[in-house]
Order: sequence, then C-alpha cells, then structure tokens
Amino acid sequence: MQAETSTGVLNPIDALAPIAREHGALTIVDAVSSFGGQPLDVGGWAIDACYSCTQKCLGAPSGLSPVVFSSRALERRVKCRSFYFDLQLLDDFWLKRKYHHTMSSTLVYALYEALAIVEEEGLESRWARHERNHHALVTGLAELGLSMLPPHGERLWTLNAVRVPDGIDEAAVRRHLLDEYNIEIGAGLGPLTGKIWRVGLMGASSSPRLVLLLLEALKSALSPARAGPYVRA
Amino acid sequence: MQAETSTGVLNPIDALAPIAREHGALTIVDAVSSFGGQPLDVGGWAIDACYSCTQKCLGAPSGLSPVVFSSRALERRVKCRSFYFDLQLLDDFWLKRKYHHTMSSTLVYALYEALAIVEEEGLESRWARHERNHHALVTGLAELGLSMLPPHGERLWTLNAVRVPDGIDEAAVRRHLLDEYNIEIGAGLGPLTGKIWRVGLMGASSSPRLVLLLLEALKSALSPARAGPYVRA
Repeated sequence: MQAETSTGVLNPIDALAPIAREHGALTIVDAVSSFGGQPLDVGGWAIDACYSCTQKCLGAPSGLSPVVFSSRALERRVKCRSFYFDLQLLDDFWLKRKYHHTMSSTLVYALYEALAIVEEEGLESRWARHERNHHALVTGLAELGLSMLPPHGERLWTLNAVRVPDGIDEAAVRRHLLDEYNIEIGAGLGPLTGKIWRVGLMGASSSPRLVLLLLEALKSALSPARAGPYVRA
Repeated sequence: MQAETSTGVLNPIDALAPIAREHGALTIVDAVSSFGGQPLDVGGWAIDACYSCTQKCLGAPSGLSPVVFSSRALERRVKCRSFYFDLQLLDDFWLKRKYHHTMSSTLVYALYEALAIVEEEGLESRWARHERNHHALVTGLAELGLSMLPPHGERLWTLNAVRVPDGIDEAAVRRHLLDEYNIEIGAGLGPLTGKIWRVGLMGASSSPRLVLLLLEALKSALSPARAGPYVRA
C-alpha cells in the first residue's frame, strides 16, 4: 500500500518493490490514495500489479478502478474463477470489443475529462501542488500547536494524520467542522481511534483555499474562549 | 430470461416460475431488457432471484445492477468465493454501512432520479406506453411489408425483432439509418445473422416520435427509387 491512509504514512515502494523483484517475488501495489497525488512509477519501480481508483487524487467520480500489470505478472497468469475480474475477458472486451459487460460510459467520459485536467496541469506539477499544500497544512497546524503522527519524511501529502491534543473531544471537533464549515475530516481507526484526525488533500481538494479554511475552522474549534464542549473538563 | 433480445421473444415467467417452485427448484430471472418496460412481479410470480440493469427500460445511466432475492433463496445461501458479489458483505455495506466498496454516488443519484421519473409516470402507465409504441411499430412495419420474427402474443414490447425482406442488404440499411438519421438498430446474432433487425424501444426511446422517425427512415432506405445499394442485384 503506497498511501497507508490509516496512519498517513507513505510507504517507500521505490525501495521495496525492486527488493521483491531481486528475490523473484511479484509485487502488487495499492495506489488508491496516491495515484495522481504522489509520484508513482509503475515501470521504473518494478511493480508487477498496481491498482487505484478514480475519485481520489484523479478527481473523477467514483466507480472505476485503473489497473495495470507487468509482463512478468501476465506470464504467471492463472485461470480466473471470477467472471467479473477475468483479465482475459476484460482484455477481449477492451481490445477486441468482445462483449463482457456494459460499461458505464458516463464514468468513462468523466474519467477522460479528469485525465485531460491532469494533463493540462501536468503530472509533476500536480504532485508538486499536493506536496506544497501538505507542507502549508503542516506549518499551519504547528502554529496551532498540533503535530503530525508520522515522522518527517514518511508523511503522505494526500492524507494528513494529525495528533489530537490531550483533553480534546475529537468527535465534537469533527462534528463542529462538518456542521459549521461543511468540512469532513476522518477519525482514527483501530488502535488510533480518538488519537488522530485524518485530513485528505486530494485532487481538487488539495488547494491553499481549503487548507486555510480548515486551519481557521480548527482554530475556532480549539479556541478556549469558544470551544466550550470540545475541551474535556 | 424474460426478454430474450436475440429473438425478440417474451418468455412467460409468470407461467414458468411457479412450475419450478412446485418442483422445489429455485429460479433466477434475467430481467435486463424488460424491467420497467414489461410487467414483472417478482413476488407474485414466485421468482427466487432476479437481476436487471439501469440503462435500458429504467432510463438511468449504465453501471449499476438492481438485484433481489426471495427468502427461499436466502435460506439456501452458500459461502461466496467472490469478494465482489458476496451478498453478506453487500448486505452489511447497504444496511449496516460497513465498508465493502466505494460506490458510485453519481450513478446512485442518477438511478434515484430515473426511479422518480418512473414513479411520476406510474409503472403500469409505463408498461402501457411500451406496449402502445410496440404495436404502433408493428402496424407501421406491416404497411411497409415488413413482418416480425416472433408470433403474435410472444413478442417483446421492448425489443422488436423484424424479418429482413429477401434481397435486402441489411447491413447497408443499418448503416444508412445510422449515417442519415442517427438511429442505431441491432443486427441478428448467431443463426439469425443477416435475417433480422433488432429495434429497441426502451425507456425514453419508447416514444411515438421515434417510432415514426424509424418508419420513415426505413421507408426511405427500402424505397426502390432511392435504395440503390440496399437492394441486392
């Protein structure tokens, strides 16, 4: 998993995948929350299978899943027991126009437009934008006394895991952001429940305007004069 | 299959499904090309599993598949080996909001709107409209000397299988309709290749305006004076 969204950690696929290949192993990379927002080089990093989504850093509607395989992965193909994900049938559908399913033309057109927008911005500029807005957020959070869960250098630009300060009712803060500012941020999962907030800055939502709005909204929620219910007694 | 679109035949599910139930068999009905355009009574006809699509007689975009099961079918549920179609996981997703997949909200909103339009028209009025336009087409075709493949009483209202007259280059006629009138009709499949045209009148396309347009377009294509290439030497 390149973007580990439960912790906000960027896994170094560029370092890990070539090690797997050296040992003859195939790799499969989940790039769901990174594709379009963090550098990803499927060929250069020796990734054998990679999949993502359309609704996060690409900014298209949800409903489709880009997927790609290396020739090494394709050579080791086994008979598929699922009609839905039979690569041979999907291959015939896309390349030879043999009927497999009725695709959602609406979603394909939307993805096409989203990819055109990515092209207009330029992929490297898009990565740089995600990086810039991540740093702007981290800097602003530090001014509010808030720190990040992952150490410097291991942080995702697309999903920002922020430590909840002691004595704060984190669910009340999230509710306040949603009710007052129409901003939804995520809660911590599993062992991190109640301990972090998870702030997505993906695709169009990775913008200075939204970073500033979130920082102001958090400031208002955490201000002792106004926070009332959010600071636990 | 309720609507057998390769032949234009309506299968009498209301008669067949109860026979299956009498013998203790479960039934699964494909209502892909009938749901919303032909009467369908899943409960009343003792159907155990039924699925359809959104892009035909419901008139929504493609990409979703309505599916329903009887309690008898659910009692005989077996462990599912597909994550994609694991009914228990889908059940938990829809009813308990446990994560299974990211659904396409775009398509769900579109389906919701399409269903509102069905409600406004009324389901029985919608069926009656499909029936009426089917009969208008059959009558108009007869005036052009064209006849239907299925016998009277076994014909779908949603997919009309029309016999190609002898000596007509049916592919040239279809190309003419598409090029000149932006009307796409289907070709025959398998043993019916070259022998029938398949005319869909589903959802919004089941309209008097489109029936008349098709009849005029066919008339022009088949007219000896103008047909030139369409009548084989």
